Amino acid sequence: MKAAIYHGIENVTVEEVAMPECGDYDVIIKNVKSGICGTDIGAYYNGGEAAGIFPEHQFGHEMASVVYKVGAKVDPEIKEGMRVFLNPCLSKRPDCGLSILEICDECGAFSQYVQVQDAKLHYNLFPLPENVSFNEAALIEPFAVGMHGVNMGKANSSDRVVIYGAGMIGLCTLAACQSKGIKEVVVVDINEWRLKKAEEMGAIPFNASKGNLKEFLQEKFGADLQSAAGQSAVDIDLYIDTAGTKTIIPEVLGMAKNRSRLVIVALYHHDVTINPYQILGAEMDVVGSFAYANSDIEEVIEALHAKSTPVEQIITHHFTLDQINDAFTQARDANCALKVVIDHE
Amino acid sequence: MKAAIYHGIENVTVEEVAMPECGDYDVIIKNVKSGICGTDIGAYYNGGEAAGIFPEHQFGHEMASVVYKVGAKVDPEIKEGMRVFLNPCLSKRPDCGLSILEICDECGAFSQYVQVQDAKLHYNLFPLPENVSFNEAALIEPFAVGMHGVNMGKANSSDRVVIYGAGMIGLCTLAACQSKGIKEVVVVDINEWRLKKAEEMGAIPFNASKGNLKEFLQEKFGADLQSAAGQSAVDIDLYIDTAGTKTIIPEVLGMAKNRSRLVIVALYHHDVTINPYQILGAEMDVVGSFAYANSDIEEVIEALHAKSTPVEQIITHHFTLDQINDAFTQARDANCALKVVIDHE
Repeated sequence: MKAAIYHGIENVTVEEVAMPECGDYDVIIKNVKSGICGTDIGAYYNGGEAAGIFPEHQFGHEMASVVYKVGAKVDPEIKEGMRVFLNPCLSKRPDCGLSILEICDECGAFSQYVQVQDAKLHYNLFPLPENVSFNEAALIEPFAVGMHGVNMGKANSSDRVVIYGAGMIGLCTLAACQSKGIKEVVVVDINEWRLKKAEEMGAIPFNASKGNLKEFLQEKFGADLQSAAGQSAVDIDLYIDTAGTKTIIPEVLGMAKNRSRLVIVALYHHDVTINPYQILGAEMDVVGSFAYANSDIEEVIEALHAKSTPVEQIITHHFTLDQINDAFTQARDANCALKVVIDHE
Repeated sequence: MKAAIYHGIENVTVEEVAMPECGDYDVIIKNVKSGICGTDIGAYYNGGEAAGIFPEHQFGHEMASVVYKVGAKVDPEIKEGMRVFLNPCLSKRPDCGLSILEICDECGAFSQYVQVQDAKLHYNLFPLPENVSFNEAALIEPFAVGMHGVNMGKANSSDRVVIYGAGMIGLCTLAACQSKGIKEVVVVDINEWRLKKAEEMGAIPFNASKGNLKEFLQEKFGADLQSAAGQSAVDIDLYIDTAGTKTIIPEVLGMAKNRSRLVIVALYHHDVTINPYQILGAEMDVVGSFAYANSDIEEVIEALHAKSTPVEQIITHHFTLDQINDAFTQARDANCALKVVIDHE
């Protein structure tokens, strides 16, 4: 089979490699569409070690697939030709000796075929409804990250939400809010093109380089709120940070109303200085959100089935597997690319 | 009536002042016991403005009382002679023109009589069960602060808890844990005398100046846990910070297991530098806890009624109202004083 092999920074080649074996409890899936994640882009341009992507390995972890081969002892509910989504974190047995990052990020979305150990429906393989396209299904993985963040923030349909970041995860978080019936979502970024995309999807865009967010929110939603400790506040229920810059958490704490929630989804690479009295004074809830659970995946598939969000709009480009280096060049351009998809043959 | 009047730093005198008026909807209560709070000590030694305690005003907000006079239109359920606890934050009408801090901290616990506006049972006045002494009732207010913190941390009886600080609020938080049936509570401080008190009450003491807390917890409760992001963790479900030093939050984030919770009860006066990736990597829940709600007060009174904690042990000294300056001198000594109580005549 053909597979993209990661050799190091800006060094990926598509090579002929051995087909994965299909043990008694395994399923082999054939990839139809794969998405390039920010993690993959980081590995391509800055090195993959921190993400568990090592030289001479296959990689990629966002994929929509069909069942190609079924092991002898696999539940007969799983049939050849079935359209499926694979939870990449559960593609191998937990005791296989690899870290969770390696299991996920070296799963092999940029390979033609992937081995799924201990294959089970609704555990690591999820059937795709007929009306969910493979393009949409290629978004399930990042969409589940957004859904998990929204769920960790205990979002409900009457919430007013601010999302920091209009990148792939930010827009998938917007999609997750929409799938829950949330109407008012402000998306904050400094990139006008990405903000336009957020607006097209239905968000209220705010360019943080062109004004003060607290003032904008007070003008829009009222300026008469105070926290229990007497700090002036804005009428936002839930903040979701998918951007991870130094100023975001202090900004949120400086305008939070009582009992508002902040979910940290961004993978912070630096320390941040906060005033803990602001967390106390508004009785805030600051929660971390890591990856996703199977319940988030099920909810995402249901949202795609119900067509409750135009999330497919985040796909901007398609390339073949042979063009994977061009795909990575394209994916790096934040002014015109969001989700770049590999169309397998 | 007699009342302690706050004139400024280390300048409090007991004076004869006019009795409060009893309007149609008011109740006048007569104080029996009052507690000196950390806030009062701060006002006495460093100035009261930040706490809403201003010169020439009455002050104090922890008290156990009896009903002395009942306004004409007050619910007849409230009777003269009734033993009550007053929620000081609700002692005046919310629209009285004072801030919530002024309403609370200038309530007049160090006065013989206090006016309660819009007096209602289970709103601002709470009947005391017969088996709850006035000494115990003088602790209801700080105990409610601890109870609120424990409730904001969604504590349950199977939790293992670390409390930072063996001061009044720390030990009241310990009492709140005990009232919920929590068996294993580690109390962290650097003051041996206070740690001894925590131990006498049933806690596991740890002196932070004499060792590494993470190592201590790993030795005691196991060292094989990791957060989702792979950081080594300790088997603690809930951390409650009543101390507010710069190192506490980073220390907790550096050892938190998945889905553990941190409640901030301490009134931080300085910024703290954190690594937000640690909140994400353990999917932590960091929550602020401000004052208390009436439901916390009801729970505290029930705990005192059920004798589920030896919280009365935190009372170390008694003084009369005329000795209030001696009481403040005593209260400042962290090596032998915890709760100092004023016994009214």
